[in-house]
Amino acid sequence: MSLLAELERVAAAVERRLDRLLAKPGERPEDKRLGEAMRYAALSGGKRLRPLLLVESARLFGVKDEEALPAATALECIHCYSLAHDDLPAMDDDAVRRSRPALHIAFDEATAILAGDALLTLAFEILSEDGTHPDPAIRAELVLLLARAAGWRGMAQGQALDLSPERQSFTPSEIAAMQALKTGALFRFACEAGAALGRAGLPERAALIAYASSFGQAFQLADDLLDAEGDAAALGKAVAKDASRGKATLLARLGPDMARQRLDELVVEAEQALAPFGPRADVLKELARFTAARRA
Amino acid sequence: MSLLAELERVAAAVERRLDRLLAKPGERPEDKRLGEAMRYAALSGGKRLRPLLLVESARLFGVKDEEALPAATALECIHCYSLAHDDLPAMDDDAVRRSRPALHIAFDEATAILAGDALLTLAFEILSEDGTHPDPAIRAELVLLLARAAGWRGMAQGQALDLSPERQSFTPSEIAAMQALKTGALFRFACEAGAALGRAGLPERAALIAYASSFGQAFQLADDLLDAEGDAAALGKAVAKDASRGKATLLARLGPDMARQRLDELVVEAEQALAPFGPRADVLKELARFTAARRA
Repeated sequence: MSLLAELERVAAAVERRLDRLLAKPGERPEDKRLGEAMRYAALSGGKRLRPLLLVESARLFGVKDEEALPAATALECIHCYSLAHDDLPAMDDDAVRRSRPALHIAFDEATAILAGDALLTLAFEILSEDGTHPDPAIRAELVLLLARAAGWRGMAQGQALDLSPERQSFTPSEIAAMQALKTGALFRFACEAGAALGRAGLPERAALIAYASSFGQAFQLADDLLDAEGDAAALGKAVAKDASRGKATLLARLGPDMARQRLDELVVEAEQALAPFGPRADVLKELARFTAARRA
Repeated sequence: MSLLAELERVAAAVERRLDRLLAKPGERPEDKRLGEAMRYAALSGGKRLRPLLLVESARLFGVKDEEALPAATALECIHCYSLAHDDLPAMDDDAVRRSRPALHIAFDEATAILAGDALLTLAFEILSEDGTHPDPAIRAELVLLLARAAGWRGMAQGQALDLSPERQSFTPSEIAAMQALKTGALFRFACEAGAALGRAGLPERAALIAYASSFGQAFQLADDLLDAEGDAAALGKAVAKDASRGKATLLARLGPDMARQRLDELVVEAEQALAPFGPRADVLKELARFTAARRA
């Protein structure tokens, strides 16, 4: 199966689960509003890259897709909450997301904050439910891994650093450290959760974590390039935001030629990290190449 | 030991844990900001009623305080996150909390949103850690109970209802239903978590849930009375907020005489729910009376 067909298949499966989880938000208008805002944030397209990473990582250890999809859905809830909060006026102040009005524009700020809070909370509800894994020790481990990835030593700290006044003068390695938290932590969780579901040994976990690190850096450099050179219509969001905000990116520090060279290196590093898995990891390798080369 | 001494003892123990958890927020100013905002939100006093409810509920089943304190600390993280987000300009727009500037005033809005997100996430990190209970099935159950209590069918929905335009015309039973979510859900979690830690049987759980329901309603009516008649200095926050916002409270619907009568009934109901536990539940009974009679 081709990578794009695989991406679509996992995206559709995650969306079916989100649709079912968020069905029947309520009867009265006031009961429905929060659930509808959560649906808007969670069911507005998106490539669902993180769920695919999780499903493919788990598959390396013989875990069936059906068995990895609950954790993949929880991860996507965290990603969607982070977009909803990042777009808020007090944060990145973005009005467009995935070619539609951002959540706080389509609803209102209070509802966007609450829907983000509720999606964050829903992720942990999903992970702790029996259906996510029959062994409660695995469920508790997934909760711990996700909380650490998303929390004050992970994604939330990355966003805080990105908004800090000191941000303007970050060195390239400080920018990389910030991105490792802001976007890298969830990629790492995706791969580690797959390993946890499959009761992988430490060497396999370490290999997947190394892959996730290179993958995350490649994703971010490609994202910088898209922001600088991409097409707003194809991306479904504003471009050239980094430059207009005076946000120094790794791209700006390296220049486009060095950035493209580094991007190629990162893809090779990602592929090499997966060497122990042989051809079973071909989809993950292709995903790294795809992510680096994407135009949207 | 008197109730107030007991409250102080549990509050001090929870604060020591929060202080340890949030120690060393980082070296550089940009690293420290988020952790310092979390400390500000979590370590600014407060009666720590919810942790005491949890510790006392667990004690009914022979659980030592030390064994209940991790879950109690997680619960307090959720409570502090909810206050930080509720105070935001887009929500209740409160500038003062616990006699100090609200979090978004002391720091800024973005940091207040992120610190709330991070405290919410930290709660699940704590619950899933080995130290919270040796049995991972209990840890996973605590995560599930807390996620349901705090999420889109619980506290977050209660806050959404409280902010809804339809709120003005809520009937008394609709106000009660909203409060059962907005404040009641965490009180219920406190009692259920204690039962879960102690592997309580269903009848004991049901008794504690009934107590939590009456306790929560009494807490809310007392809160309405304090907002209407209380002293801003003693409370450490603005008063008469409900009236000035045209928010119909249960107090406004019942009138002060009926409200006080109902408050007395609720305390009796709370005490009666605990009858199966005999004198072992005396602290919880006293806590219901204290909460109904408090002047701050």
